[in-house]
Amino acid sequence: MNIDGATRLHIIVGDPIAQVKSPAGLTRALQQAGHNAVIVPVHVTPADLSALLGGIGLARNMDGIIVTIPHKFACYRHCATATARAHALEAVNVMRRNQDGTWHGEMLDGLGFVGGVRRQGGEPAGKRTLLVGAGGAGSAIGLALLDAGASHLDIHDADAARRDALIARLDAQFPGKVGAGSADPRGYQLIANATPAGMRPEDPSPVDLAGLDPAMFVGCVITAPAVAPWVAAARAKGCRGSVGIDMFEAEQQLMVDFLLAAER
Amino acid sequence: MNIDGATRLHIIVGDPIAQVKSPAGLTRALQQAGHNAVIVPVHVTPADLSALLGGIGLARNMDGIIVTIPHKFACYRHCATATARAHALEAVNVMRRNQDGTWHGEMLDGLGFVGGVRRQGGEPAGKRTLLVGAGGAGSAIGLALLDAGASHLDIHDADAARRDALIARLDAQFPGKVGAGSADPRGYQLIANATPAGMRPEDPSPVDLAGLDPAMFVGCVITAPAVAPWVAAARAKGCRGSVGIDMFEAEQQLMVDFLLAAER
Repeated sequence: MNIDGATRLHIIVGDPIAQVKSPAGLTRALQQAGHNAVIVPVHVTPADLSALLGGIGLARNMDGIIVTIPHKFACYRHCATATARAHALEAVNVMRRNQDGTWHGEMLDGLGFVGGVRRQGGEPAGKRTLLVGAGGAGSAIGLALLDAGASHLDIHDADAARRDALIARLDAQFPGKVGAGSADPRGYQLIANATPAGMRPEDPSPVDLAGLDPAMFVGCVITAPAVAPWVAAARAKGCRGSVGIDMFEAEQQLMVDFLLAAER
Repeated sequence: MNIDGATRLHIIVGDPIAQVKSPAGLTRALQQAGHNAVIVPVHVTPADLSALLGGIGLARNMDGIIVTIPHKFACYRHCATATARAHALEAVNVMRRNQDGTWHGEMLDGLGFVGGVRRQGGEPAGKRTLLVGAGGAGSAIGLALLDAGASHLDIHDADAARRDALIARLDAQFPGKVGAGSADPRGYQLIANATPAGMRPEDPSPVDLAGLDPAMFVGCVITAPAVAPWVAAARAKGCRGSVGIDMFEAEQQLMVDFLLAAER
């Protein structure tokens, strides 16, 4: 890893920030692509985010921002332009400069999840899919699964109002393809967990394990533990599956591609 | 060099910035001292400096700022507190946090020069000294030479008003020890060049080379070329001397010590 006076600056903003794993890997990927660039963590609270971005954006050698919790929605509002995907979700997790110095945003969480599924041999296209979790990650993943060609998407969330709001938003883009599901995975070919259920040993399973069968592909966002208990149970039944690390690795590559696409 | 989510952030501000050599060495020194910290370059214009510092200072993991040309005076004004040396010069080249998050400034250019002299076996204490150059670097070096015990300091600068202003300021602190000099080094034991004369091949020598004798110690701020022509000529006559790299290395260590002194 090289840093000198000509190094181009990228930051990752979050609150908290100490847990993020991406700076080293993203920096290495940018430098291996031949760019003198670094990604450094910036710990900023929601109250301070807008002023921090306004100030740090004045740096002439600053090219990109990676966004993590809880700033994905606020950073979307800081973007002058964004991809259709980011507009639909009103959230971004990566930003690069436009030619005039303003920010262009993209939201890659959903594409990262789909990339992780594919890394483990899964494929959303044509699949009846159950999504558990209708929060920020679930929203991005639901959109990406439909964009990738899922034949149908049912959504389950303990918060029925949040579930129904996401169903309405996605159904407007994919009419007739989106509905309400439950914790019962029977009848689906792809099961996606976008909740934290499984991070703690005492968490309930996000889906009814008795309903899993070996023909199903399971995908999960959890990175710690590396294999969530419900994924381990599914694999023990013969299912193939992807975990949070698969998503993380796929998404890192997408972030690098997005940042480098701005280079002239 | 390691960067992760827990890395503490330091920046170096300048305009231009691509030429600075310090980020890698300072980062290595901080990490070798056991600190998970990085120093990254930030290119900011004078017009944008204040807004950039106000914004980036909101980062909770940002601990320090290194200051290079042309921001040393403006950054002094951004400090809530500063060392006596920085107050005397109204300039800083390194800033660390106070406990309340405000900035504490220090100006190490002069101490770095004295450190470089000592690295090459010189010693200002008790010496009749000639300083060439009464700009920002010269002011810091003049103060540091007197602080280090120079018995007398004469100052030479092509701009007589600038020379006289510095003489007046230093004489107020060291009454009777400061006067006006010329390019003639005869009668001095230590000769300090704080001008860029020698960076280009066609530059005149900062002092009259015919007046040098082997008992004199010569010190110079120039880092490119590594040995300025007048230092090479002095060494050829038998003088000992220090160059800009000696100053740079001594100053880097002082910067690290200053930044780490804030760690709790």
